[in-house]
Amino acid sequence: MEMATLHIDQTEYQARNFKLIDYLSKEKLSGVVLFDNFYILYYTGFAFIPTERPIVYLLTRNGMKVLFVPRLEQEHALSNSVVDQVEIYQEYPFDTHPMELLTSLLNQLGITGDFGADRDGYPWILGYSGESLSELTGKLPRQVARFIEKQMMVKSPGEVSLIHESVKWGNLAHSLLQRYTCVGVSETVASQRASHEANIAMLDSIGPIYRAQSPFSSGIEVGYRGQIGRNAAIPHALANNIVFQEGDVLVSGASAPMWGYNSELERTMIIGPASDEQKRLFDHMVAMQDTALSAMEPGDTCSVVDQAVRAYFAKHDLLPYWRHHSGHAIGLRYHEGPFLDI
Amino acid sequence: MEMATLHIDQTEYQARNFKLIDYLSKEKLSGVVLFDNFYILYYTGFAFIPTERPIVYLLTRNGMKVLFVPRLEQEHALSNSVVDQVEIYQEYPFDTHPMELLTSLLNQLGITGDFGADRDGYPWILGYSGESLSELTGKLPRQVARFIEKQMMVKSPGEVSLIHESVKWGNLAHSLLQRYTCVGVSETVASQRASHEANIAMLDSIGPIYRAQSPFSSGIEVGYRGQIGRNAAIPHALANNIVFQEGDVLVSGASAPMWGYNSELERTMIIGPASDEQKRLFDHMVAMQDTALSAMEPGDTCSVVDQAVRAYFAKHDLLPYWRHHSGHAIGLRYHEGPFLDI
Repeated sequence: MEMATLHIDQTEYQARNFKLIDYLSKEKLSGVVLFDNFYILYYTGFAFIPTERPIVYLLTRNGMKVLFVPRLEQEHALSNSVVDQVEIYQEYPFDTHPMELLTSLLNQLGITGDFGADRDGYPWILGYSGESLSELTGKLPRQVARFIEKQMMVKSPGEVSLIHESVKWGNLAHSLLQRYTCVGVSETVASQRASHEANIAMLDSIGPIYRAQSPFSSGIEVGYRGQIGRNAAIPHALANNIVFQEGDVLVSGASAPMWGYNSELERTMIIGPASDEQKRLFDHMVAMQDTALSAMEPGDTCSVVDQAVRAYFAKHDLLPYWRHHSGHAIGLRYHEGPFLDI
Repeated sequence: MEMATLHIDQTEYQARNFKLIDYLSKEKLSGVVLFDNFYILYYTGFAFIPTERPIVYLLTRNGMKVLFVPRLEQEHALSNSVVDQVEIYQEYPFDTHPMELLTSLLNQLGITGDFGADRDGYPWILGYSGESLSELTGKLPRQVARFIEKQMMVKSPGEVSLIHESVKWGNLAHSLLQRYTCVGVSETVASQRASHEANIAMLDSIGPIYRAQSPFSSGIEVGYRGQIGRNAAIPHALANNIVFQEGDVLVSGASAPMWGYNSELERTMIIGPASDEQKRLFDHMVAMQDTALSAMEPGDTCSVVDQAVRAYFAKHDLLPYWRHHSGHAIGLRYHEGPFLDI
């Protein structure tokens, strides 16, 4: 019997960096500058929530791994054993702008001339403002996000284990959600009660080693996000505190972050007896899900799946109801490529 | 007695747009393209969680307000009464890239020549990739984020009411957190129990009209984020499921989204009797908070506050313990400018 280790080990982080270094060599780039928190988590294991204080990962073609963080993150970053060096700036804002110090650091590390980046500077979030890399270095960095996204698409056994573990707890949370969903109860009460109890169960089971390491959530979340009744057709909505009524169509979502990795369990349900029209459309939905799953064959492109589903839509005069593609991948982000699309 | 309306009304959204239109006229910009979800929420009231499917707000100098959304968000966007028009694209990815359609739409609306944007294209998040506005239009848009950030800094009475309401529920959540924090309990259990009960109380009190409208959370969140014992010095950490022990220093945080608006209640606490050293530093912390609050005077710059606090640090030989500035503003984001800084 295989035991999941429930975290990504050091050798895997090293292997991930080696792949990126290979790419830098092939593309003749001196190094790479990463601002995206998921890319930084992927290569270093350093989990954080992005704020107005930039956190940057620098990797040179020679394999030097440096985290650039505000003073207040120094101890947190130093406890991360994958990187070789932690460089700090005092604060943002401050009399010296962190991007000035970053520019010097790039020179020191030899990340000059042609180098890569996931974006041309830190995004202006939560009140941050600052110059771009091209403004500071006089050169537009080469976009490396496409390479990184492709690398992240292929999941290791360790990553798959964590996603499997996530699925298990999402399923518990969803069972509880179904139990607490009744006419007269509000979506928020049902969602929060189920999330709360599922979390207690998960923590009692996995024990104190559990780490969410997710900027999205510190534990299991299950609920309806306002997709109830007429609003069931509006995906990715925000919770609206709706009270359940007989005949409501419900669209649910459950996820449980596991050392950064996510799963998504989404279901369509109806409160009380379904009408004939609800049954007819529900059966189509199930048939389309079966169509998609049986269209997935090793060696085929992702588009084959969505084409099969669209053919079903067309054949059954359902195209006016089409809203979005059949699916997407998942990993450190709850949506990621590849998408099952045309 | 004043009654808070607990939402931002239509006239306030109109007034916010008028201010931006004034700026466009003054700067001779034909219009503005906004990708940031908080900026879009601020000007239109349209609350959403950003994904790989771009959502864009377009405002022309003539006052035309257009939301550009994927097909699956059409009904959601149409229910928003502030905008004049909702334009859709089918899906991302799709055979026509949404940025191509957006470029045509800019031409149709006359957002050409010199125009503004909050960034040069949609950020590459959750697997999205696409060309920038400057690649598509041949012209780098003018950065308008500085103007928008300044506009957002000045809060209206409606915004202040929502932040006040948020503070009240954050305080309830924090009282419950203190009640459930005991030696032997884990931070996650205490945090989730307090959050859950505070949410039930809030929903029973405000009733079904409550809307979080926040991408951060669909209700009250209170907890420790791993800032316990030795880790108390690491701000903005992620929860680590730590079990409380006698003598632990705890740093907490509570917030409750109210129609998009946030508050932050953060406290430092000690479990059981505090040591002399803990008492000494705790007293300094309180004295520094008092120093900051009494340094806030209308007409002074924000930097006066941080200078007063730093002077206290220096006077009491505490500079080695300095980690970050004294504070920041809050609103639709849990951090935003102005920062209380040098």
